Amino acid sequence: MSSLLARLRRRLQRRNLDALLVTQPENRRYLSGYRAADHGIGESAGVLLIPAVGKPFLLTDGRYQLQAREEAPEFEVRVYPRGLFPLLRRLFSSLAPRRLAFESHYLLHSVYLNLAKLAAEKGVELVPLTDLVEQLRQVKSAAELALIEEAVRLNEEVFSTVYRQMQPGISEQEVAWLLEETMRRRGAEGPSFPPIVAAGPNGAKPHAVPTSRPIAAGEPVIIDMGLKVDGYCSDMTRTVVLGRPDHRTLELIRLVRRAQLAGQKALRAGVSGSFVDRVARSVIVAAGHGDHFGHSLGHGVGLNVHEGPSLSYRHRKLLRPGMVVTVEPGVYLPGWGGIRLENMAVVTEAGCRVLNRDNTFLDV
Amino acid sequence: MSSLLARLRRRLQRRNLDALLVTQPENRRYLSGYRAADHGIGESAGVLLIPAVGKPFLLTDGRYQLQAREEAPEFEVRVYPRGLFPLLRRLFSSLAPRRLAFESHYLLHSVYLNLAKLAAEKGVELVPLTDLVEQLRQVKSAAELALIEEAVRLNEEVFSTVYRQMQPGISEQEVAWLLEETMRRRGAEGPSFPPIVAAGPNGAKPHAVPTSRPIAAGEPVIIDMGLKVDGYCSDMTRTVVLGRPDHRTLELIRLVRRAQLAGQKALRAGVSGSFVDRVARSVIVAAGHGDHFGHSLGHGVGLNVHEGPSLSYRHRKLLRPGMVVTVEPGVYLPGWGGIRLENMAVVTEAGCRVLNRDNTFLDV
Repeated sequence: MSSLLARLRRRLQRRNLDALLVTQPENRRYLSGYRAADHGIGESAGVLLIPAVGKPFLLTDGRYQLQAREEAPEFEVRVYPRGLFPLLRRLFSSLAPRRLAFESHYLLHSVYLNLAKLAAEKGVELVPLTDLVEQLRQVKSAAELALIEEAVRLNEEVFSTVYRQMQPGISEQEVAWLLEETMRRRGAEGPSFPPIVAAGPNGAKPHAVPTSRPIAAGEPVIIDMGLKVDGYCSDMTRTVVLGRPDHRTLELIRLVRRAQLAGQKALRAGVSGSFVDRVARSVIVAAGHGDHFGHSLGHGVGLNVHEGPSLSYRHRKLLRPGMVVTVEPGVYLPGWGGIRLENMAVVTEAGCRVLNRDNTFLDV
Repeated sequence: MSSLLARLRRRLQRRNLDALLVTQPENRRYLSGYRAADHGIGESAGVLLIPAVGKPFLLTDGRYQLQAREEAPEFEVRVYPRGLFPLLRRLFSSLAPRRLAFESHYLLHSVYLNLAKLAAEKGVELVPLTDLVEQLRQVKSAAELALIEEAVRLNEEVFSTVYRQMQPGISEQEVAWLLEETMRRRGAEGPSFPPIVAAGPNGAKPHAVPTSRPIAAGEPVIIDMGLKVDGYCSDMTRTVVLGRPDHRTLELIRLVRRAQLAGQKALRAGVSGSFVDRVARSVIVAAGHGDHFGHSLGHGVGLNVHEGPSLSYRHRKLLRPGMVVTVEPGVYLPGWGGIRLENMAVVTEAGCRVLNRDNTFLDV
């Protein structure tokens, strides 16, 4: 059995759980290797049922049977011709779990009602969990790091290809579209989130949606983009200027870059996410822009583009080697625009290894 | 107040419900006009709280405040700076609902736990519902029909543009990509689902994913595609052949087309979805291919590409004028491939109005 499943099982046993039902698609893939994608939470490509002892099961419908057998050799694949619950009933009868954990953060209430009915019928106690597998996923293996590094490399290739094609007058939407098109043509699995292209005033919103407004020369343009390589995500932000930036833009880009460098320098195993956030934030606060940096410094990246750990005031746990996080300070001035710079880095014992090579932020 | 909200409220009152919490994004848009999209079930752009009597509320975070006020003038927009639940607590105090309905099919169990805690604290009884608003949405207004018709028209324009560019040797993925690219260039909001392009043996799977395999001359190619215009979806399938189809392909396309015409002829207000399914299916069963048509005949289309009513053996309710459904029989032969033809039609008193003009299935 993989060491991963063994570690999961030790955690189940420690909590006195007899089995875990995995519904979150990235957790399902992480534990089993099965790569099918869900089309939204209502259209699942299958679930895992992992007993604390004995063979783990992958339950899916006939469409995915071959793929599941190929990709998840450690799992016994069972097909449900008439939906998940009749099959679960039979498995509950044979496995007889007393305490069954399920993923409360990825199960619809209406599906939970069916599960609760079956559990009551079979005398099974249900235990809602929210991040058991997600915690395992935070520290990346060498194979995972290689995929993430390839995603970052391809991300930079796509970014610089599109950046070279940008001229004043191109719209935010056209740039976003070029980014997605170039990702696919260069072999990415797809974007890890819809690209953000936000010029001038639109950049003051950290989650701006690209508009049809033409980009003017001289205004800052936030480009926040990510893609996937074999399931693993990249996430990168650059703020560029077409033509000559004005004094304020230059000054703020330098400020945000200083905050980012401070954060990257503070990032290492054994400190908390909140510590790293505080170090980078203090640079921006000292420049009088504390109120203009309204989000946390960073987040974990892996099979999900947003996952743990968080570099925020709420994250008190200590960072560990092999965690991958973004470092993305920003300054947002309502009515004027925004600046954000985002790199990805791997936490190491001695510090961190920044995965990005692109230095477009030094152009201006 | 809109007649829509008035109808919803009568339904709440009939069920002795004091308020409804709307979390499903298309229901939210349908009732309020507010168009923001969620990024997955974990990242909501807001919820509606609709009391059976009195002003309805739209609850969202600061990023969406302006958009919500512009698009949902009938709703009182309230912003939650520290998450939904502190705001809900205040509203529960002032509205004091005794029985609150929520959308069980679009609420995560972990969020439900928070709602249940708050409800217990405030003495509110929670009532899980699964399709109250969805039922209202089944019958389309004239304005909705106009958008759906435009989506179907644009869908056909995109299909024929791409079909003209297809030559043997092009891959399924390349065709899928051309479809998405052409949708966007022609002004669609986006695809209503990832296009299915399935040639030869891949076509035997009704939900095939496009592969990099080149399409050969002579084999049937299922193209199942949809797009969105102002939120409303199209959904259309054609089976095409590059080059000369063989005898079996021609025969099966004619069979599936006969089944489709029989279904379209049977479709009218006052019959059940199961009746229409049975009429079309009997054509395929009579030809000895009953076992090769393993899905239902059709489904409703609107703000969701799959919604009620269903044309399947399970749908006993009578169809009503203004419902929009697909009619999509198919025949799938494992190892060989598949044929599917899909139109959209509006149910009328006298029969139905087929929205598609494209007759590519007559080419072969």
